[in-house]
Amino acid sequence: MIKNTIEVCFAPPLFPYLSTKGPALYVIVDILRATTSMSIAFHNGARKIIPVADVDQARRYKDKGFLIAGERDCRKVEGFDFGNSPFDFSPETVSGRTIAYTTTNGTQAIELAKGSGDVMIAAFVNFTSSLNWILKQKRNTVILCSGWQNAFSLEDSVFAGALIENMLQSQNFETIGDSSIVSLELWKASQPDYTSFLKQATHRERLTQYYREEEIDFCFLKDITTNIIVLKNGELLNIS
Amino acid sequence: MIKNTIEVCFAPPLFPYLSTKGPALYVIVDILRATTSMSIAFHNGARKIIPVADVDQARRYKDKGFLIAGERDCRKVEGFDFGNSPFDFSPETVSGRTIAYTTTNGTQAIELAKGSGDVMIAAFVNFTSSLNWILKQKRNTVILCSGWQNAFSLEDSVFAGALIENMLQSQNFETIGDSSIVSLELWKASQPDYTSFLKQATHRERLTQYYREEEIDFCFLKDITTNIIVLKNGELLNIS
Repeated sequence: MIKNTIEVCFAPPLFPYLSTKGPALYVIVDILRATTSMSIAFHNGARKIIPVADVDQARRYKDKGFLIAGERDCRKVEGFDFGNSPFDFSPETVSGRTIAYTTTNGTQAIELAKGSGDVMIAAFVNFTSSLNWILKQKRNTVILCSGWQNAFSLEDSVFAGALIENMLQSQNFETIGDSSIVSLELWKASQPDYTSFLKQATHRERLTQYYREEEIDFCFLKDITTNIIVLKNGELLNIS
Repeated sequence: MIKNTIEVCFAPPLFPYLSTKGPALYVIVDILRATTSMSIAFHNGARKIIPVADVDQARRYKDKGFLIAGERDCRKVEGFDFGNSPFDFSPETVSGRTIAYTTTNGTQAIELAKGSGDVMIAAFVNFTSSLNWILKQKRNTVILCSGWQNAFSLEDSVFAGALIENMLQSQNFETIGDSSIVSLELWKASQPDYTSFLKQATHRERLTQYYREEEIDFCFLKDITTNIIVLKNGELLNIS
């Protein structure tokens, strides 16, 4: 049986050097915190999220009556409705609404991938539902870690390893490249308690200057929700 | 006490995004195989090695009477004296000679680093001598993994982890960034026998199409030699 491939891109600048050829499924990961927060926004009733590349573009959406979310350098952008914390998106504020969303890393990764195949976003908070959907696609898959300002990040690659372990168990996938091997090794090294392991992440440390630990470490919790978030016509939708 | 920093660059495209600021010591690593083979060439008596960026430049050195070494796509370049295997550089052929050397990855990494600080090359085959020299420099240090065609490679990052473990034990260094944390985790995961662990490296697999396993796995052996190889005025010299 020919298996589908899984490849991990450790950070956006490595994207041009992937071995995966042809159209694939791109799984965008930004655990701290864009893909986590977006998943929670959907969990609390957001109708759709429009990823936008920069602050000015988001402001133009606000002028048209949309909610806008975004951070730069770990903080909510001035005049925005929300920052990039999963705690920002309460049911009261987001239910039924469309949000234009820009972050330092996550939305930029979406921008990069969308020309090359289908795009979904995933996080620990919607791990199992995302995994099950990926397994059903039976396609070559690239896990694109957003990182922090183009550098490698621990939490995104550990998450990639968790996905890979489960994808390999399905017998329908095989890894390509050393970054997949390493992600799986990292996931194994993070056991038995990956949430403690992730406390050494540099970006978590950076965020503790501005946020309470509970608010940050919420991003490491698994299966808070069961949504499945894919990009369709440039907009993120929950298709669960 | 203020400690010096250690940072790992997982692949050349991530070089612009390092956190290390100001002049530093750059340790170039290309275990499979440029930095290994260069170290063996010095062990067998080479006088100096001139890293050159491309095949044409190397050929111009040959016209001037130098030996030339290099590979493209895992194979010796046609008309060159040596490929990129440590077994190519016998005492009979290299003793007292200067070699112009170009490879797919290693010499390109040297090119990248040389504008930003002092440069040394290191490999498992000269691990302890390189480590001891690094410890004596007491400087901020960046370990630059050459990778394979700009992608991440397992063997270079495991080597980085081995260096980091020893540098931290000296109490004079602290890591910055998640790639340093991960390199150390990988080194730990590779125990008790890192040479077996490295057999899963993608580039090792690629090389087995062309070379005997003993010739490739030689690159994983520790402390075959005690040389210390630094870049001075654009040329690599053994200063041990």
